[in-house]
Amino acid sequence: MRKSVILTVKETAELLLQQDDILILCHKNPDGDTVGSAFGLFHALKSLNKRVRVECNYAIPLKYSYMFPKSFDEFSPKYIVAVDVADSKLLGDKFAEVGECVNLCIDHHSSNREYAENLLLEADSASACELVYKVVREMNVEITPLIADCFYTGIATDTGCFKYSNTSSSTHRAAADLIDLGCNYAKINQIMFETIRPNRIALEQQALATLEYHYQNRCAILTITRDMLETTQASDDDMEGLPAIPRQIEGVWVGVTLKQLKDRSGYKISLRSTEEIDASAACQLLEGGGHARAAGCTVLGDAENAKNQILQALSFQFQED
Amino acid sequence: MRKSVILTVKETAELLLQQDDILILCHKNPDGDTVGSAFGLFHALKSLNKRVRVECNYAIPLKYSYMFPKSFDEFSPKYIVAVDVADSKLLGDKFAEVGECVNLCIDHHSSNREYAENLLLEADSASACELVYKVVREMNVEITPLIADCFYTGIATDTGCFKYSNTSSSTHRAAADLIDLGCNYAKINQIMFETIRPNRIALEQQALATLEYHYQNRCAILTITRDMLETTQASDDDMEGLPAIPRQIEGVWVGVTLKQLKDRSGYKISLRSTEEIDASAACQLLEGGGHARAAGCTVLGDAENAKNQILQALSFQFQED
Repeated sequence: MRKSVILTVKETAELLLQQDDILILCHKNPDGDTVGSAFGLFHALKSLNKRVRVECNYAIPLKYSYMFPKSFDEFSPKYIVAVDVADSKLLGDKFAEVGECVNLCIDHHSSNREYAENLLLEADSASACELVYKVVREMNVEITPLIADCFYTGIATDTGCFKYSNTSSSTHRAAADLIDLGCNYAKINQIMFETIRPNRIALEQQALATLEYHYQNRCAILTITRDMLETTQASDDDMEGLPAIPRQIEGVWVGVTLKQLKDRSGYKISLRSTEEIDASAACQLLEGGGHARAAGCTVLGDAENAKNQILQALSFQFQED
Repeated sequence: MRKSVILTVKETAELLLQQDDILILCHKNPDGDTVGSAFGLFHALKSLNKRVRVECNYAIPLKYSYMFPKSFDEFSPKYIVAVDVADSKLLGDKFAEVGECVNLCIDHHSSNREYAENLLLEADSASACELVYKVVREMNVEITPLIADCFYTGIATDTGCFKYSNTSSSTHRAAADLIDLGCNYAKINQIMFETIRPNRIALEQQALATLEYHYQNRCAILTITRDMLETTQASDDDMEGLPAIPRQIEGVWVGVTLKQLKDRSGYKISLRSTEEIDASAACQLLEGGGHARAAGCTVLGDAENAKNQILQALSFQFQED
């Protein structure tokens, strides 16, 4: 496997200043962090009169369109940058060969595969945007409100709006700087955190109707069937956050979500737990696995069978009380 | 009406340093900001070996118990401080007379009634905690992780975890400082933002089942009946955020929530809207009122009647398209 040359923020900024005809690439299922990093860097490099373009193998959701430029330059790339992309495979089929030619990767995943020639990696950074922001600051580019919007987006979305434990004091300080630079954080927060798709609402309503409690309300089970997904036309995006709900219920030690397999042959079971329950140990009894607080397994048959199996697998831990 | 002596942060700190036997009071329906302000100030003053006590006319929810001391000092108060309390009426019946004797109020509500002898007011501060934190810093007290927990709580809860438009760069900087001082923000965020009461889940599920769309999905209506509230044993706390849901649905211009009156004689109608709809104008047609983006009215009769009335009141604005 290739080993990247590891760069500092300053070296990365100096390297980028020397380049032109730059192609910036995002990862699969583009999220706020990869998109914000790409467009923040794009607008910064454009302000230096370079030719730059952002590409992604996958459609970038329109909710991010406030970052888009009116048009992109046409050119044959001389320098390729990947942002928030831990593995070249995540660039998608269209860029399968390009993966070998990435000149620079800016990333915050400790799992980064070092596929790029040069790598700026800060694994304790909550977002790639926080890191790209540092690079752009080092480049002495004027950070416009639009550039600030891009970086704020990734910083906010990768931390669940500063809620997750990956948030640090430097995350908050970066957000403070970007707000002072004029980013439209109230509008961005509304788009990212206060907008619900009608399909999601419909799916959530149907899924919540299945909620049941076991083991003196210490275990909550949510079931999502193919029929629900079809009647509500819910996408994978609409599923986001649903499997977390059962565990978030007050008093619940283990939240179980059953999601019917595409071919309806069985159920994928996801467990989230508090420290009282070893989710991984329960799933291992059903030939699954994972971490102590989040694990999964797959069980064939109908929902009743899946419930019985996982309740049985959990019974040993509840009996110990 | 009494006019308070307006103090600066520095003057407030100096004044507090001179006092002893201090009673700190919170407001009605105690929330994270009034509780965090009170206990943050309490622990800071305790570290100066003063006698201090926090009181509230209303039970402080147990989710805030991580701020509580093991016990309170017994003493006859010589100095009374109200935190995050805009009006002495909000102190509750037990403190109706005390309202006239409050020596110092620290608040961030522009509507503050100036009932206290001295007032520290910063209306552009997103939370009272941010302000009390400044005072405590000025007092040169060592800010322990416990004190940081108290202040972080109010800063996070009053901004919806940095999501609402009242969040500013100084809010983020205060959060950054408190994280550096050792506050347990991940645990606090989990308690405040990722814990759902089972009654709330049950109510939400029943309420979402009533969701209906009108005017080409630009209007969404959610209905909450007394039967729902009774069967789910939902409290007012469990209602929090529900009326905001219809407006948060993608594409919706006006979200309507109907909540049945206690005596079941009619419905309280709440409207939240985007700039396309004047919620106040619609509610005025039904003898209600409010702001352009959030307004309300009350209609007698059953839910069908309430729906018809508000849809009729909105029809003029939808016809204009």
